[in-house]
Amino acid sequence: MTAEQHPFDAALALTAMSDGLWQGRTSAAYANMVGPYGGLTAAQALHAVLLHPQRLGEPVALTVNFAAPIGDGPFLIEAMPVRTNRSTQHWTMAMRQNDEVVLRATGITAQRRETWSTREALMPQAPPPDAVPLPNWGMPMPWLQRYEMRFIDGEPPRRWEGQDSAHTRTRLWIRDVPARPLDFASLVAMADVFFPRILRRRATLVPLGTVSMTVYFHAREEQLRTYGSGHVLGQVQGQGFAHGYFDHSGQLWSASGQLLATTHQIVYFKE
Amino acid sequence: MTAEQHPFDAALALTAMSDGLWQGRTSAAYANMVGPYGGLTAAQALHAVLLHPQRLGEPVALTVNFAAPIGDGPFLIEAMPVRTNRSTQHWTMAMRQNDEVVLRATGITAQRRETWSTREALMPQAPPPDAVPLPNWGMPMPWLQRYEMRFIDGEPPRRWEGQDSAHTRTRLWIRDVPARPLDFASLVAMADVFFPRILRRRATLVPLGTVSMTVYFHAREEQLRTYGSGHVLGQVQGQGFAHGYFDHSGQLWSASGQLLATTHQIVYFKE
Repeated sequence: MTAEQHPFDAALALTAMSDGLWQGRTSAAYANMVGPYGGLTAAQALHAVLLHPQRLGEPVALTVNFAAPIGDGPFLIEAMPVRTNRSTQHWTMAMRQNDEVVLRATGITAQRRETWSTREALMPQAPPPDAVPLPNWGMPMPWLQRYEMRFIDGEPPRRWEGQDSAHTRTRLWIRDVPARPLDFASLVAMADVFFPRILRRRATLVPLGTVSMTVYFHAREEQLRTYGSGHVLGQVQGQGFAHGYFDHSGQLWSASGQLLATTHQIVYFKE
Repeated sequence: MTAEQHPFDAALALTAMSDGLWQGRTSAAYANMVGPYGGLTAAQALHAVLLHPQRLGEPVALTVNFAAPIGDGPFLIEAMPVRTNRSTQHWTMAMRQNDEVVLRATGITAQRRETWSTREALMPQAPPPDAVPLPNWGMPMPWLQRYEMRFIDGEPPRRWEGQDSAHTRTRLWIRDVPARPLDFASLVAMADVFFPRILRRRATLVPLGTVSMTVYFHAREEQLRTYGSGHVLGQVQGQGFAHGYFDHSGQLWSASGQLLATTHQIVYFKE
């Protein structure tokens, strides 16, 4: 990490080993309770595609399956174009530590064109970021310090006393700390900032972990490049919670209401 | 197909070639305008996992990337367990025709246990299936004949005159034709019955095709086994439509309101 480098760029960095194979490492700045923040790991999986010399177009879809706990330290990540069409390209990615698969992912990139457009997932009305206070996390995970999260509603529980909230919808303004211009990798990382919905619902700490996360990209490269480092509005809500797994569905908008990405994940929980 | 075999089972059938490799074929009964109905193809990808002798547990998540048009005729499908943990297993699947990848998919299976449970994606109020008329499709695709779809609202456009509907939410009762007991494979196939949201919105026929589809399973095997061949309630709505792609988010419930699955897809469109 150079003096000028943002912690996210330092954490994301991959070193080319051979065609389609890179070495990266987990980042102390983005550490979670155990292992790395999953949003950073997902961003690294996308980054391997974005760096690939054969890449065609920009990201359309990304699905990351977290296959095993990732240990602190180095890893290898491979990105492979498995099918290249005229305007779309299909990718598989694999992350390994000690020759064991810890992550598998798939991606789709495409040359995108102007077409008819509309949006139905509309940005909720929200006060401006500076009118929304910062939360008092009281939690030790380093990655929480890497995001400004201003909760409009559905904030993390203040008391962990097992009260059941009626629903798990959360709306918040999100920004990198320090502020950093938005790009596809940071958008993917932001798509995982929503703290686990079961914690919001139950206010009880239970063992849990995301097993699969999908991001659909609605923003184009050009649009992100001109966005700068402004806040992004995130919204998320749980759907079903049963038999050890729950899922959520979320959206990310620009401050002016442009839909940047939609995201879904399914999360393991115990008890 | 034997005299007693349901068309879905006949279409789904895979012949073992070697460990983890099967041969299947597209089905005239589930043909779409061009090539097979994508829901059947997704079900075949899951079926290869379900048949695998090393499978641990039941499906939790499935993501299917449609990499290229699938030609009518035979294909090879490979399912590979890439990581097996104590209670979860991660899968990759690849479908090939003439040695070219036409589909890549990932899946997660797990041994599921009783845990705390709740649901937030609640089934909308709906009249019983027999109170909802069948649509007059007026479209020639054979797979439409394989599903009873009773549209509660958001039915397909009656006139293709380019009128813009305000939103693309659709709610419908779904059942196999002829009726067939629900299982994981048929649930996946049903997760793709929602006709493309852009057609609902624009009432204009444009070239399009699903590029990626994800299903999260909330139902357990046992629950499906006892469900029988009753109708399933589906709900879907588009989110963002721009630069040649749109996505939708949907849910499937049992008639008694149990959340069976949630599903998302991103679809290419032209113009």
